[in-house]
Amino acid sequence: MVEITQTANETRPLPSAVASRPSAGVPHVVIVGAGFGGLYATRALKHAAVRITVIDRRNHHLFQPLLYQVATAGLSPGEIAYPIRAALRQQKNAQVLLAEVTGVDLTARKLHFKDGGEIGYDYLILATGATDSYFGHDDWQPWAPGLKNLEEALDIRRRILLAFEHAERETDPARRQELLTFVLVGAGPTGVELAGAIAEIARHVMAEDFRSIDPRDSRIILLEGGPRVLPAFPPELSAKAEAALTKMGVEVRTNSRVTAISRDAVMVGEHAVPAATTIWSAGVKASPLVKMLGVPVDQAGRVRVESNLTLPGHPQVFVIGDAAAFLDGAGKPLPGVAPVAIQQGRHVASNIVRAAQGKPLEPFHYHNKGQLATIGRAAGVADFGRLRVSGFVAWVMWLLVHIFFLIGFRNRLMVMFDWTWSYFFYGRSARLITGTMEENDER
Amino acid sequence: MVEITQTANETRPLPSAVASRPSAGVPHVVIVGAGFGGLYATRALKHAAVRITVIDRRNHHLFQPLLYQVATAGLSPGEIAYPIRAALRQQKNAQVLLAEVTGVDLTARKLHFKDGGEIGYDYLILATGATDSYFGHDDWQPWAPGLKNLEEALDIRRRILLAFEHAERETDPARRQELLTFVLVGAGPTGVELAGAIAEIARHVMAEDFRSIDPRDSRIILLEGGPRVLPAFPPELSAKAEAALTKMGVEVRTNSRVTAISRDAVMVGEHAVPAATTIWSAGVKASPLVKMLGVPVDQAGRVRVESNLTLPGHPQVFVIGDAAAFLDGAGKPLPGVAPVAIQQGRHVASNIVRAAQGKPLEPFHYHNKGQLATIGRAAGVADFGRLRVSGFVAWVMWLLVHIFFLIGFRNRLMVMFDWTWSYFFYGRSARLITGTMEENDER
Repeated sequence: MVEITQTANETRPLPSAVASRPSAGVPHVVIVGAGFGGLYATRALKHAAVRITVIDRRNHHLFQPLLYQVATAGLSPGEIAYPIRAALRQQKNAQVLLAEVTGVDLTARKLHFKDGGEIGYDYLILATGATDSYFGHDDWQPWAPGLKNLEEALDIRRRILLAFEHAERETDPARRQELLTFVLVGAGPTGVELAGAIAEIARHVMAEDFRSIDPRDSRIILLEGGPRVLPAFPPELSAKAEAALTKMGVEVRTNSRVTAISRDAVMVGEHAVPAATTIWSAGVKASPLVKMLGVPVDQAGRVRVESNLTLPGHPQVFVIGDAAAFLDGAGKPLPGVAPVAIQQGRHVASNIVRAAQGKPLEPFHYHNKGQLATIGRAAGVADFGRLRVSGFVAWVMWLLVHIFFLIGFRNRLMVMFDWTWSYFFYGRSARLITGTMEENDER
Repeated sequence: MVEITQTANETRPLPSAVASRPSAGVPHVVIVGAGFGGLYATRALKHAAVRITVIDRRNHHLFQPLLYQVATAGLSPGEIAYPIRAALRQQKNAQVLLAEVTGVDLTARKLHFKDGGEIGYDYLILATGATDSYFGHDDWQPWAPGLKNLEEALDIRRRILLAFEHAERETDPARRQELLTFVLVGAGPTGVELAGAIAEIARHVMAEDFRSIDPRDSRIILLEGGPRVLPAFPPELSAKAEAALTKMGVEVRTNSRVTAISRDAVMVGEHAVPAATTIWSAGVKASPLVKMLGVPVDQAGRVRVESNLTLPGHPQVFVIGDAAAFLDGAGKPLPGVAPVAIQQGRHVASNIVRAAQGKPLEPFHYHNKGQLATIGRAAGVADFGRLRVSGFVAWVMWLLVHIFFLIGFRNRLMVMFDWTWSYFFYGRSARLITGTMEENDER
C-alpha cells in the first residue's frame, strides 16, 4: 500500500497549453487515451473532487470489438465510433483535448505534446492501448495490414472490395484465383470473425453482383500457428468454432507457421499460398508511448504494473488496459480485452479518490465474466467457466452483450437496425471503396 | 434526325479487358459514369436488346444533393452512397467495371483505360459529371476545398471539426477567433446549405461540448459575388433565404468578390477576412474527360451537344448531365442538377433503342418540375413556377423529394432515421475526424 501526498502541479501557460479552469484548487487527473480504460476511468470520477483532462490523438472513442464489421462492410465507421466530447458533455469536471502525447516526464510530472505544448498532472492514467505486432517482421505490414483503428479497417475494406473488382476484369485464371484468395493470419477472435464475415460476403452478399466471376469461387484461408482456433477458449469450443468455419467454406489450417508475406503470396513453412489479400490478426504489442517511460516492460511491450495498477516507484501514475501487464493469480498477464480495461479504469478511479483522501490504495482483482466470439451469420461460441454455449444461442448472447456496451443509445439503435437488416436480407450497408484514386491504383 | 447503322464493334481481348459475354450479338452500349445520368440511362435500358457496360472509377453511386450533410457530420458516407453493382444486380444485361477512362477514340469507337485496357462500343454515353472550377485560381484549392465527392466531403468534415478542436487548445484570442471563423464562397444551394448546417453545429450540436471556448462565438460568413443568395431562384425566395440565414447567425455578404484565398484568410476586394476554414462552392466545370474529345466546349468545359444529345458528327455518342451544355429554349444551358441528368439519361436510352431499330432519334426537352433548397433546421425555399413556398413546408418538401430519389430502400430508411433523430435531439451522428495523423497535423 502506498500513500500519495497531494501536489499542486499546474499547467505551464504555453501558447498551445490548456487554459486553466476555475476549479484549479483540486487535484488534476490527466488521462491519456479514451478507449475503454480511459473513458470508464473518467466516468467513474464524475462526482469526485478532481479536475480531469482527457487526452486522445483521435476525437472519437472506438468500439474495437466491432471493428471487424467495419472492415467487412457490415457497419459504417460512425456506428462504432462516438465523439469523446459528446460522451463527456455532461461531465463538467472533465475537459477533452485532441493532442498526441510524445513524452512523459515522471520527475516533473508533466506530459509533452507533439505540437510542443505540455501539461502537468497530479495523477496520471496511461490507457494508451495496443498496436499490431509483427514479431520483428515489420516489412510484412504493407501486405498484411492489422485491424486496430478505423483507418486500418477502411483500408482492409478497400482491399477486400477491390480484390473482387479486379478479379471481375481479370482474364488470366491463375491471377483471378489469386485475387479471389483471402488469407487471415492468426485465429484468435479477430481472425475467426474476419474469416466468417469474408465468407459471408463471398457466398451470399455479393454472390449475384458480378458477371465474369462467381464470388463463391473465393478461397478464405485461416492460418493458425498453434494447434487450434480460438486458443484462449476451451478445446471443445475451439472444435465447435472450427466446424462452423469449415461449414461456411473457410479453409482452417492449424499448426501453420507463416514464414514470409509478400504482395501476392503468403509462405507457410516452405509452401507458398498465392493470395492478393492478407490480413494480420496474429499479435499485438503495447502502444509505443509506455516504452518511453524507461520502466520494465514484458515481451509485448506492456508495463509491469504493481498490484494496485501503479507504475513501480510512481504511486501517482497508473497504467491500465492493453498497455499494462497485470499478472493474475496464476502469474499470467490478463488478456487485452475490453472487460479488463473497464474494470481497471473503474478501479484506478476509486484508488485516486482514496489517495486524494489520504487513504491507502487497494489492489486490483479481475472478475472474469466469460468470453464470447462470433463466427459469422448466426454462429458463435461463449465460455462462462462451467457454462459453455455454441451456435445460435451464443451468437445472440454475443449480439446482446456488444450492443449493451456500445457507447451511445443512438449507436445501439443503428447497429441493431443494421444487423437485423443484414440477417434478413444478406445486405451489407457499407460497401464503399473510399480513398484517393492513387491509393486504389497501388493495388 | 440522324440514322445510325449498327456496327459490331467488339472488345479486343487484352489481358485486362472484359471477358466477352454470351449476348455478344446485340449492340454494345458503354456508359461512362454512374451518377444520376448514367444510372438512369442504364436502368431505362433494362429490357432493351443491348448489352451494357457501365464504367466508373468509383464503386458507388453518390447522391450528391446530400453530400453537404456528410461534410457537416449529419450523415455517414454509406447513407448517401450505394454500390453500383448492388444497384444493377438484377439487371442481367449490364456489367459494371471499376476503371478510369483516360481516352476516347471516336474513330475506332473504343475507350482507353488508365491501366492499359480498352473497350469497344457501338453506342457510347458519356455521363462523367463535373468537378470544382476555381476560374483560373487553382492555387486556392488547398485552402478552399470544393464539395464534389465523398473524399472532399470527409476532408471538409475533418477541417470543420478540427477547427473547433484547435480553438479549444488555443490561448491567443485573435487566432482563436480565426479558428472559429468559417467562410463559404458562393451562395448557390450548396453554399447556403453548408452555411446553415455549420451554423446549426456551432449554435446547437456542439454548444455544450467544450470547456475553453463557446462554439456559439463562431462566425459563419457566406460570400456571394452577385447581388443575392440563391441566384437561380426568384428574388422573393432569395430574400426569404437570406432572412432565414441571418436569423440563424450566418453573416451574408452579397456583391462580395473574392480576390485571393490563403491558409488563414480570404481577401474580399481589398479587405482581408481572417478564417482558418474556407469552403469553395462558387463554380463547377465539366470533368476533364470530355475536353479530350476535341469537340467544341463552352467556358465551363461542357460539350455543346445536338438537340438529341449526340456529339456533333458522332450520332452514336451521347453526352448527358453536368458534362453537357444543352441549350434551353432561351439559349441558356440547362443547370447541373439531378433532374436534368435523370431526364437526359432516360431520353438517351430511348434514343438508343430507336436507333437500334433503325428509327430516327428524337430531340430532348427538359421538363422543369421546380427547384428546392434547404437552409437549415426546418427552413427551406421551393420554387415550382407559379407556386413559391418557404419555411417549414418547403423544408418538408425538400426532405420528401430527397428521400424519394435516394437509391436503395435501406438508405432511405437510414436517412429518415438520422434526420428524425437530429431534428428532435440536435445530434450529429457522424462527427468523426478520420484520416492519418499526418493529415491532421497539416492543419
